[in-house]
Amino acid sequence: MLPTRGYAVHSPTDNLAPFDFERRELSPTDVLITIDFCGVCHSDIHQVRGEWGNSIYPMVPGHEIVGRVTAVGAEVTKFKIGDHAGVGVAVDSCRECNNCRADYEQHCEKGSVGTYNSTEMDRVTPTYGGYSSQIVVQEHFALRITETENLAAVAPLLCAGITTYSPLKRFGIKAGQKVGVVGLGGLGHLGVKFAVSMGAQVTVFSTSPAKKDDATRLGAQHFVVSKNADEMTPLASTFDFILDTVSAPHDINVYLNLLRLNGAMVQVGIPEKPMEVAAFSLVVNNRSLAGSGAGGIAETQEMLDYCAEKGIVSDIEIIPMSRIAEAYDRTVKGDVRYRFVIDMSTL
Amino acid sequence: MLPTRGYAVHSPTDNLAPFDFERRELSPTDVLITIDFCGVCHSDIHQVRGEWGNSIYPMVPGHEIVGRVTAVGAEVTKFKIGDHAGVGVAVDSCRECNNCRADYEQHCEKGSVGTYNSTEMDRVTPTYGGYSSQIVVQEHFALRITETENLAAVAPLLCAGITTYSPLKRFGIKAGQKVGVVGLGGLGHLGVKFAVSMGAQVTVFSTSPAKKDDATRLGAQHFVVSKNADEMTPLASTFDFILDTVSAPHDINVYLNLLRLNGAMVQVGIPEKPMEVAAFSLVVNNRSLAGSGAGGIAETQEMLDYCAEKGIVSDIEIIPMSRIAEAYDRTVKGDVRYRFVIDMSTL
Repeated sequence: MLPTRGYAVHSPTDNLAPFDFERRELSPTDVLITIDFCGVCHSDIHQVRGEWGNSIYPMVPGHEIVGRVTAVGAEVTKFKIGDHAGVGVAVDSCRECNNCRADYEQHCEKGSVGTYNSTEMDRVTPTYGGYSSQIVVQEHFALRITETENLAAVAPLLCAGITTYSPLKRFGIKAGQKVGVVGLGGLGHLGVKFAVSMGAQVTVFSTSPAKKDDATRLGAQHFVVSKNADEMTPLASTFDFILDTVSAPHDINVYLNLLRLNGAMVQVGIPEKPMEVAAFSLVVNNRSLAGSGAGGIAETQEMLDYCAEKGIVSDIEIIPMSRIAEAYDRTVKGDVRYRFVIDMSTL
Repeated sequence: MLPTRGYAVHSPTDNLAPFDFERRELSPTDVLITIDFCGVCHSDIHQVRGEWGNSIYPMVPGHEIVGRVTAVGAEVTKFKIGDHAGVGVAVDSCRECNNCRADYEQHCEKGSVGTYNSTEMDRVTPTYGGYSSQIVVQEHFALRITETENLAAVAPLLCAGITTYSPLKRFGIKAGQKVGVVGLGGLGHLGVKFAVSMGAQVTVFSTSPAKKDDATRLGAQHFVVSKNADEMTPLASTFDFILDTVSAPHDINVYLNLLRLNGAMVQVGIPEKPMEVAAFSLVVNNRSLAGSGAGGIAETQEMLDYCAEKGIVSDIEIIPMSRIAEAYDRTVKGDVRYRFVIDMSTL
């Protein structure tokens, strides 16, 4: 077994603190990744604090992992020692069901294995995430990383990146389409970068007028203060697609009403309480409201390659491990532009 | 002007009673249809009783109209006197906007003209529906009817038919797919007939075990009492598509959870209160919840031609105009298999 240092909580009210545990010895198809950086996802906070009701303790959070391959199993073909590699939200699945074979491992019919706060396919062994020195993972679930100059800024692509890229691709966003992005945070700022890179005309909706300059800098053509009815009303039935990244309580009908014929809105923020959807918000213009859960391994690799080609990375603020509590507080307040990334050399 | 006899209400608490009014003289592109039958749609009741908050009185309801062409304008090419013709939920639109040009007149960007409880494009002249002796309509908005042997049973196709056909076509339902139909009423029983005709494996979900025999007779392979968790649980993530026809309050998450990867549910019942949608119901399997509003003229014609070819009509109970109050009461109670149709010769 491989002695590993991490940061963990032992209860919903605990603070993250050093935690020593063991990673498994490498199987023939495993790789060992020494972790350089790990992004801080809002879902880390929800799960650390037990807010989704599914928390397993002790918990080592983190599923936006980048690092270097430092050992490989005998049958590994995708990586060699010294390669850069990443790990996202899943580390295993059955690999046999319809969804797995269709490259949607995250929707494995038997239940995929989350990178943390989950159990391996044996449904017993807990998984520990990227707030740690190293991780052992099936090579299938490790991603190749070719953009290594700004490695820390690549980390958030493993969750926030694929979560916003996947629905834009699924709904075939293309040049000239009118796309709205609701909320300019960790997810939203990457949603804007992707939609702009696909040639869409992008409008950012935010409750915070202070974010207008950032929206413009990220490439958005329009910025709307969503609480301002005078700005919203003329936009009714004009959008092809809207990506809603807000998890705080908000009226989604306001945004559904902006969709034109056969338009779709995808909700990637996960509000705690059910969303209230008026039937007529969907009936008018044959609108759709869809969900989206991260992306499969093939699509995540496609996204990373796309980002390397287009020069897309996350806007980040690098922190040492010791400042994680402060980073959590500021993330909850939306006071980060736009993702904290932990420098794991500070562990 | 053309003196016309109808049945109308003058307030939300009024009972339908004889009402004399005038139809316009025919323009060069109008046809005059002498009405043989008019279906009783649940939305007639909602609007007569002012339950949608949009009612204009006096109101002559009815938008499932079939009859014979008894006069044509000088430029009419689609009909000649003696042809059978139908009118559905819309009688005009701008004909110029993107949606109209894409054959989605019902979603006209300037607002289509409802067959009743609406105003003409002048936004002043009220429209009166099919509980009447005759109607004058632009030939573009009149439908050709080739199935004339059972004309009364064709009437409900003009609203209930197109409302269920359109989403099944839009989502490309094909042989072997697993389709659920929630609720076995006016909409649901036609949804079952269409899905079965497309080769789908159809499951009917109903709160009423008494409807099992009918579901089987209509061609459904499976029948599930939706309140029975033991029957519902094993069906999680197994359906390609679900058509929800229920407008009474119900938990739609129960049905969303039955959708497999990239599955969609279309809500064609119009619940009065907003539907509560849990984010995870959509995130798991990348599910969609969509709305659908009737269909355009071209698609309605396609549906009527499809029904004539496949021998699909509505199950109906014919009533004289004098029994309309009783028909409303029984429709509200779900006590009709599956659509009341008024014999307009009894007017």
